[in-house]
Amino acid sequence: MTPPKVSKVLLVGAGGTLGRAVHTALRERGHQVVTASRKDADIRVDITDPDSVRAMYDAAGAVDAVACAAGSVPWRPLGELTTSDVRAGLEGKAVSQIELVRQGAPRLPAHASYTLITGILTREPLLTGSVASLVNGAVEAFVRAAAIELPGRQRINAVSPTVFTESMDVYGEVFAGFDPVPVARAANAYVKSVEGHRTGEVFRVE
Amino acid sequence: MTPPKVSKVLLVGAGGTLGRAVHTALRERGHQVVTASRKDADIRVDITDPDSVRAMYDAAGAVDAVACAAGSVPWRPLGELTTSDVRAGLEGKAVSQIELVRQGAPRLPAHASYTLITGILTREPLLTGSVASLVNGAVEAFVRAAAIELPGRQRINAVSPTVFTESMDVYGEVFAGFDPVPVARAANAYVKSVEGHRTGEVFRVE
Repeated sequence: MTPPKVSKVLLVGAGGTLGRAVHTALRERGHQVVTASRKDADIRVDITDPDSVRAMYDAAGAVDAVACAAGSVPWRPLGELTTSDVRAGLEGKAVSQIELVRQGAPRLPAHASYTLITGILTREPLLTGSVASLVNGAVEAFVRAAAIELPGRQRINAVSPTVFTESMDVYGEVFAGFDPVPVARAANAYVKSVEGHRTGEVFRVE
Repeated sequence: MTPPKVSKVLLVGAGGTLGRAVHTALRERGHQVVTASRKDADIRVDITDPDSVRAMYDAAGAVDAVACAAGSVPWRPLGELTTSDVRAGLEGKAVSQIELVRQGAPRLPAHASYTLITGILTREPLLTGSVASLVNGAVEAFVRAAAIELPGRQRINAVSPTVFTESMDVYGEVFAGFDPVPVARAANAYVKSVEGHRTGEVFRVE
């Protein structure tokens, strides 16, 4: 089954810098975008809560693709890290995004795709970012693994960007020496994942 | 401060195929090995319980190196995976090993090292192994990140082996087409990590 040329995409985490850019990029490609977020979206969702994810899928109906731009992790020096910080990061960006796939797999069509968000800290660590590294590494390895087990011809990829030009006022200090990229380039990687035919890959945007 | 030529090594997960091989390799190099495990060890420990990890460190006293060969994850088809499976894998091999580092960092000497266990599924997925991939990817990225934040000159590495020759009767079917390695080769990578000077690295044994 070939995916339709114009897809209905469920965009999770639509309200952030990245989410808004992905929304724009998908609309410009003619896709129908259903937004899901903690607030100000077509569907309210807390992806760390499996029941909320279930309700989101019920509300969204049939979708051709899930694009996730949501996920939060604590940034804290290793010496101050608590076990709760580690767990909060894993729940906030790994277990939560896996839940989108786990619940999506049996209900979405055979051509559906999942595009998850990770980040450059998988490969380039930063001070106070050990939980971000941990969680991004987890999601990227999961993406490679899930790709060989998804039903039908479902696909899954991760977008792994460096710091955004638009976020340099907040993150510029910690990302000193990194070349920022316009968030539109990361959004374009979502288009590549949604419209393309690749699976199990990490699209680096740096 | 240079590490002593002969180290006192706390070996966590001493009872398994890998743990016993690491024990032998470290003793052959003249190190003093203190074993910790769920049973049949110098110190009883459940590394998924932070209080148990604390008690282990109290009982072990000053050690020069921590070598972990412990960690378990559920193997299950993606289509049968529950949220609890995902969390159990993360607790069993990621949060637990991070706990060894988190609690070790402030109490071990400036030259101490940590050697954690991951596995080839980070880079080569297998059917029913998505949680193993997830967890190994998490630990490997954490190792790279923790390396730049550990106090003093503390070091951290991961050993990431393929399937062991000694485990082919159990795992041979799922690892079809993989070249197994003798477990002694993985144990040797622990020696490299403990005695060497490298940090933030994943020692692939394949």
